[in-house]
Amino acid sequence: MSDILKQLAAVLEERKHQDPQKSYVAGLYAKGLDAILKKIGEEATETVIAAKGGEPGQIVYEMADLWFHCLVLLAQQGLGPDAVLAELQRRFGLSGLEEKSSRPA
Amino acid sequence: MSDILKQLAAVLEERKHQDPQKSYVAGLYAKGLDAILKKIGEEATETVIAAKGGEPGQIVYEMADLWFHCLVLLAQQGLGPDAVLAELQRRFGLSGLEEKSSRPA
Amino acid sequence: MSDILKQLAAVLEERKHQDPQKSYVAGLYAKGLDAILKKIGEEATETVIAAKGGEPGQIVYEMADLWFHCLVLLAQQGLGPDAVLAELQRRFGLSGLEEKSSRPA
Amino acid sequence: MSDILKQLAAVLEERKHQDPQKSYVAGLYAKGLDAILKKIGEEATETVIAAKGGEPGQIVYEMADLWFHCLVLLAQQGLGPDAVLAELQRRFGLSGLEEKSSRPA
Repeated sequence: MSDILKQLAAVLEERKHQDPQKSYVAGLYAKGLDAILKKIGEEATETVIAAKGGEPGQIVYEMADLWFHCLVLLAQQGLGPDAVLAELQRRFGLSGLEEKSSRPA
Repeated sequence: MSDILKQLAAVLEERKHQDPQKSYVAGLYAKGLDAILKKIGEEATETVIAAKGGEPGQIVYEMADLWFHCLVLLAQQGLGPDAVLAELQRRFGLSGLEEKSSRPA
Repeated sequence: MSDILKQLAAVLEERKHQDPQKSYVAGLYAKGLDAILKKIGEEATETVIAAKGGEPGQIVYEMADLWFHCLVLLAQQGLGPDAVLAELQRRFGLSGLEEKSSRPA
Repeated sequence: MSDILKQLAAVLEERKHQDPQKSYVAGLYAKGLDAILKKIGEEATETVIAAKGGEPGQIVYEMADLWFHCLVLLAQQGLGPDAVLAELQRRFGLSGLEEKSSRPA
């Protein structure tokens, strides 16, 4: 299940060579960074709205949209989800059992 | 690498039984949903600011913060990252090779 | 100049009786609260992006969009800009010369 | 009532000459643009959360926070609320009675 982020990152990489008029993601790349960031703000807001609405399916749906556009941003920047996962791993230790005491509030 | 989300979800589950004054996450649970959602809005904004700043390390750092608080929301709601990953997998097909044509703009 | 907020609030009130298919605002009312809130999140993000872009005209343009949708929210809630202005006045004193020391960080 | 925005802008201008350790606003100026933008994202999210909560007083309170930090951004950029009000006036006509048909969705 969890390799989906890697698979998705590969798909997003591939989209860089596609027609912006045929692929939603290629269209976002063509519009550029600001268009991608606008989507991240939008989907974060929709996640908040969904959570206040209290319907689990809607929360999952909007969070998937948010993560998806985060992955698009990473791809557009020449980065990938591994960098974010490594940062999370670094903060919580290899075993994932220790909360880093120095994390900023 | 990618199992970090599952490990982190387990850590966040465990935090439910900890002292809100000793654990940042237990403190968030104690403050409740709105406090968690406020952090998601905050970290999404910081991701946008970091991306406009153009420093890769900062983008990764802020996105890790964003994903972290998304995981806290999922845990608080009795959900987990698997639900979000399953939704992403559903949209893109098992092999992760097809972009779902019906995805909303 | 500054009566524009009141004039605009009056326009937004009037829009409640218009055809959602002919008026953008009537369309937002018809879609409901979540649609309005989504726009507030969106325009706040665009204001942030514009500010990082550094072009004054763009900052003003996006902030006008943000304030506009704030006024739509107020109207939809049966409130108006006077309530927000009164709150700001309350915090800063009648003469507007004293920053309220107790304001939350 | 509506001159409060101008009065507040004057207060914010004055804060540029104050001690960042004694004035919240002077502290924001000292931290710089990103700190101000972070607050705008934060307060927009809190406005959304308040609106979903449905308590009018809370909506007004959070929107006042949002507008306040918008005014801080304008001041920091050498702009003022008049520019935003003029943009709103331009879109809606002098009498404030016509919704500009060309406004972007």
